[in-house]
Amino acid sequence: MSEINVGIVGATGYTGTELVRLLHRHHKVNIEVVTSESNTGQKFSSIFPSYTDIFEKELVSIKDLKNYKLDLIFLALPHKVSMEFIKNHGTFGAKIIDLSADFRLKSSAEYEQWYHTPHIAKNELKKVVYGLPEFFRSKIRNAKIVANPGCYPTSTILALGPLLKKDLIKSKGIVVDSKSGVSGAGAKANSKTHFPEVFGNFNAYAIGSHRHTPEIQSTLKEFSGKKTEVLFTPHLLPIDRGILTTTYSTPNKVLDSELLREELAHFYDGEKFVRVVDTPPSIKNVRGSNYCDLFVHYDERTHKVITVSVIDNLVKGASGQAVQNMNIMFNFLESTGLKIPPLFP
Amino acid sequence: MSEINVGIVGATGYTGTELVRLLHRHHKVNIEVVTSESNTGQKFSSIFPSYTDIFEKELVSIKDLKNYKLDLIFLALPHKVSMEFIKNHGTFGAKIIDLSADFRLKSSAEYEQWYHTPHIAKNELKKVVYGLPEFFRSKIRNAKIVANPGCYPTSTILALGPLLKKDLIKSKGIVVDSKSGVSGAGAKANSKTHFPEVFGNFNAYAIGSHRHTPEIQSTLKEFSGKKTEVLFTPHLLPIDRGILTTTYSTPNKVLDSELLREELAHFYDGEKFVRVVDTPPSIKNVRGSNYCDLFVHYDERTHKVITVSVIDNLVKGASGQAVQNMNIMFNFLESTGLKIPPLFP
Amino acid sequence: MSEINVGIVGATGYTGTELVRLLHRHHKVNIEVVTSESNTGQKFSSIFPSYTDIFEKELVSIKDLKNYKLDLIFLALPHKVSMEFIKNHGTFGAKIIDLSADFRLKSSAEYEQWYHTPHIAKNELKKVVYGLPEFFRSKIRNAKIVANPGCYPTSTILALGPLLKKDLIKSKGIVVDSKSGVSGAGAKANSKTHFPEVFGNFNAYAIGSHRHTPEIQSTLKEFSGKKTEVLFTPHLLPIDRGILTTTYSTPNKVLDSELLREELAHFYDGEKFVRVVDTPPSIKNVRGSNYCDLFVHYDERTHKVITVSVIDNLVKGASGQAVQNMNIMFNFLESTGLKIPPLFP
Amino acid sequence: MSEINVGIVGATGYTGTELVRLLHRHHKVNIEVVTSESNTGQKFSSIFPSYTDIFEKELVSIKDLKNYKLDLIFLALPHKVSMEFIKNHGTFGAKIIDLSADFRLKSSAEYEQWYHTPHIAKNELKKVVYGLPEFFRSKIRNAKIVANPGCYPTSTILALGPLLKKDLIKSKGIVVDSKSGVSGAGAKANSKTHFPEVFGNFNAYAIGSHRHTPEIQSTLKEFSGKKTEVLFTPHLLPIDRGILTTTYSTPNKVLDSELLREELAHFYDGEKFVRVVDTPPSIKNVRGSNYCDLFVHYDERTHKVITVSVIDNLVKGASGQAVQNMNIMFNFLESTGLKIPPLFP
Repeated sequence: MSEINVGIVGATGYTGTELVRLLHRHHKVNIEVVTSESNTGQKFSSIFPSYTDIFEKELVSIKDLKNYKLDLIFLALPHKVSMEFIKNHGTFGAKIIDLSADFRLKSSAEYEQWYHTPHIAKNELKKVVYGLPEFFRSKIRNAKIVANPGCYPTSTILALGPLLKKDLIKSKGIVVDSKSGVSGAGAKANSKTHFPEVFGNFNAYAIGSHRHTPEIQSTLKEFSGKKTEVLFTPHLLPIDRGILTTTYSTPNKVLDSELLREELAHFYDGEKFVRVVDTPPSIKNVRGSNYCDLFVHYDERTHKVITVSVIDNLVKGASGQAVQNMNIMFNFLESTGLKIPPLFP
Repeated sequence: MSEINVGIVGATGYTGTELVRLLHRHHKVNIEVVTSESNTGQKFSSIFPSYTDIFEKELVSIKDLKNYKLDLIFLALPHKVSMEFIKNHGTFGAKIIDLSADFRLKSSAEYEQWYHTPHIAKNELKKVVYGLPEFFRSKIRNAKIVANPGCYPTSTILALGPLLKKDLIKSKGIVVDSKSGVSGAGAKANSKTHFPEVFGNFNAYAIGSHRHTPEIQSTLKEFSGKKTEVLFTPHLLPIDRGILTTTYSTPNKVLDSELLREELAHFYDGEKFVRVVDTPPSIKNVRGSNYCDLFVHYDERTHKVITVSVIDNLVKGASGQAVQNMNIMFNFLESTGLKIPPLFP
Repeated sequence: MSEINVGIVGATGYTGTELVRLLHRHHKVNIEVVTSESNTGQKFSSIFPSYTDIFEKELVSIKDLKNYKLDLIFLALPHKVSMEFIKNHGTFGAKIIDLSADFRLKSSAEYEQWYHTPHIAKNELKKVVYGLPEFFRSKIRNAKIVANPGCYPTSTILALGPLLKKDLIKSKGIVVDSKSGVSGAGAKANSKTHFPEVFGNFNAYAIGSHRHTPEIQSTLKEFSGKKTEVLFTPHLLPIDRGILTTTYSTPNKVLDSELLREELAHFYDGEKFVRVVDTPPSIKNVRGSNYCDLFVHYDERTHKVITVSVIDNLVKGASGQAVQNMNIMFNFLESTGLKIPPLFP
Repeated sequence: MSEINVGIVGATGYTGTELVRLLHRHHKVNIEVVTSESNTGQKFSSIFPSYTDIFEKELVSIKDLKNYKLDLIFLALPHKVSMEFIKNHGTFGAKIIDLSADFRLKSSAEYEQWYHTPHIAKNELKKVVYGLPEFFRSKIRNAKIVANPGCYPTSTILALGPLLKKDLIKSKGIVVDSKSGVSGAGAKANSKTHFPEVFGNFNAYAIGSHRHTPEIQSTLKEFSGKKTEVLFTPHLLPIDRGILTTTYSTPNKVLDSELLREELAHFYDGEKFVRVVDTPPSIKNVRGSNYCDLFVHYDERTHKVITVSVIDNLVKGASGQAVQNMNIMFNFLESTGLKIPPLFP
């Protein structure tokens, strides 16, 4: 089979750059066009000198996208801008993988409640598939538009989904305590990401109000069939890449850690990118890779189930998962271009 | 009133060094002697060049302590070594502030269960006061031996204590998710604290089994009168100093954030070192200082109470609190030597 | 003697904040007014929560400065803005310590060449004293306006000055390789200080063109009497605070390290804030303090003199030195308010 | 052509681990055996959980190497241990790439002078080729034993070699100021690499005495034909990976930056792993990759040539270069297995 032509819209943000890293050598893919409104006319490698000699394509404006024949478009855009793109430009006859939050919630009402802005592409919303391969692989295969999951939700849902589905834990009162590196906040500088403020520091933010909350809840419900209620608290880690999520839930019966691990191992048997591990995982165990490492513990004393999961927020939490979705949508081997070992140390 | 003579036993560990930082200019204190078994005969400043011209006293062996007339001895020793010191040497007629874990648990049985070693100073244990000034100030005033609280417990108990005492939250099912900088692991290098392993990394450890768990539970019980059950999960932050603790508990009735904040503010009214704040605090807000910054949120949607507290683990979490205890024990103004503003940025 | 009244103009930048840290408990100083144009009307502690309960004064506009009776004004402003302040407002009858670069170069022509902007306060420039106490103490004592030295120049000049003055090294061909933490770039966020870009990274910048070059050269000339030529290369360290400067120069004769160290020790004998050390110093040896630690080595094999010096860029490299200058100008003990031990670890 | 069988001796050090990262998917290579004396019998992935599902081979002892038929052995051992290996075991009929320092200096006398230990494999030393492909490719092609260059030397020699060879700079009085991440110090923890000591810190070390000095000098001499004298000063950067080297030298005539850049670009024309760049490079531009990014500047004012070069110390500075050498020795395409883009951000 020959290569497909893809476009990366918003190629100079962090998820866009990461798509270039993963796709420029993917042997089934030709990166036909990369766009940036703020850097139109410049070479990608002049913005990112690390790509000198590697990927030097010139950045074009969205306005010129119509000149390219594309099989797939990655939208690496902020929320709101993504649905405006779809609204204004359609899909150019291509399949779409959207890395923004605009199409992750099935309910536009819920979207409007958490994102405080009207949803302007409700028709498209109905056709969208949520792109978590380990849960929705068969739907992704035939999707026209895939909503690529958020970083926090990926790390959370992979941990809790199988436990809920198997009725091992209660779907209420779940606590999700997440810690993310700063690249999750995007490539645009602001006072909260100013180096001297973040360095040596750590804080919680958006307590009780983070927009990934409904994404976690609705996906867990869709997958497990149980209305799920999650209290989600994100924290900002003073590192560049990586998320670690610790969850606390109440088991439906007396369990043990070994049994829980086996349940997870069984569920993820055959999966290339989820590793059920028997010691608490570290963020650097997955740095730069598409892995999610997943640990579970049953605390006998307090009768709670704890999970700890780690991903690289820019890979399994964004662009790597997008490539995995692409591989599924185009019938490539699912791990093509993603067999990258973690960078340790 | 004239100065008191103090000795710092184990002066070259991190809590010992921090005691020197806080005490060398305390105008009511004369650091009469500093000990180190591994560096006997060397100047303190030759081990810590940052103290050149500041504190250059020669380190002596514990064996020579008997030659000094001391009003107070700080034991900045590992657990087990502290009770051996008391067992073998007594107190030299001085008051004792012990920074180890050996005298923090009232029950020697509980100590033996969590620390996997016999308690060898049970008689002394009975006389010990737990040195959390905001809770036990009057007992500390007359104590001969003070057990200085652990770093994780300090950050946790200050947050949960008043809520439990006031019957605002349930004493069961409390989740404590803590994140600590690496100095909490002490000054001794090992593979888990090797820079390339920790840098850019993050992980949970001692899940379900950390020894600060019984200290948190028993202190909360002693203070609030309620048998308290806590699930405590520590994580290792890639920073040098600081702890942030996030707790999740269930309220006894419908509440609101404002009311909770007022309850805490009222409880800590007049306290010099606990600041009840109205935005989630950052670790660097207290770096190098004796403050605990404390935030509370009531999550209406999930009916949970969240607290976020930050301390510098070496100051309010160890040596600063020890100095605060000393000030109380010797009737000095409680903030003497501790009015150090946080180092930000 | 009673207190003096000081104003801090530009109190919410990093050097302004650091002045608050050092002055709010200085027993000879009353911080009468703090200004900020962008945060007028807000409490200092609402911008910097670390100052809650410590320093809560309301920020006012420069326009209101005339309502205050001040003995001393600290200008913690960017270059250009400082001389505009002096031009537009005069000095309000107060003495001035200017932390910007506007008055550091005696020659306005040189200023205009390196800063690419006209100097608009040439009259005032003539009266200014360069505020490096160890070199120009007696002039500082009687100065009306003190130009507080730059951070890189402080670390460089303290190392090279005595060697040049004593004719130990040649004044041509000196290489200065400096490495600074990010707070040196100020409190304003930009893409170059965005956390994910700086974290784990390191780079040289402004090669051959950094504006501290003429400051280093002209000060060394003024002090040593020798026209000095320096090649200065700054680098950006992924830390919050601190500068380490390595210099390479050619000795005028065969020397040895011991002799050089003695020369420096002799020169700095009696100085409170320069410590001549016998092992290469680390940045954290001076973190948060007003010390400059200084090491010298004679390399026999290549016949070169190497110096390594460290300072905290915000203290001895800015606000600490400003307070030292104030102490001199008002006949306070020179170390008042500055006896702060380094924060290690 | 079929695969070659390789062994990695000392696979659990950082350079050994990095060889696994680069070779486990190299399609011309079969990693036949990995050794570790301290972890014999354990799976590689149990020591490095990041390799779970990726590389799980069991670690064997050197004593068992004789049971394997190998085309190539990588010695990822400390200096001294490497030559003992060769002395005691020979080469098992395989080619050798030695990543230690034992065979980098042609002169055993010089080795003994700088490493303070007798050279015990002088016969083998004579046959060794220094494995810097860009300089010695044709010799490497036919070598039996390749001494893989040191990390600091690689970053330095690639910058200075062409300038010396072309007679553009003087070979005396060269200053090399290098800054390295902590993984350069190896995987073994010690007090100097304890996280709280390194974090937020920076220092120079081994001033005038670092063992990479003779390697730099003798290689530059071998390549350029000029006796070269270098003053080399290493510094410890608080990051995990990466070296940045700044050099200062005196040109033989008036030059300009553009011309120098062209000279370097011409010299490295066709090279896959050296990129001559026109803005000062950052360490993260090459993180995880085999690139060396190289910048040159002529400073008119002081008549000096400055170079800035960056590498990942574990890749181009160690294991990546070793793989590059292997590719040359076995007539594989030189970039096989090394086309890994840098991990940015």
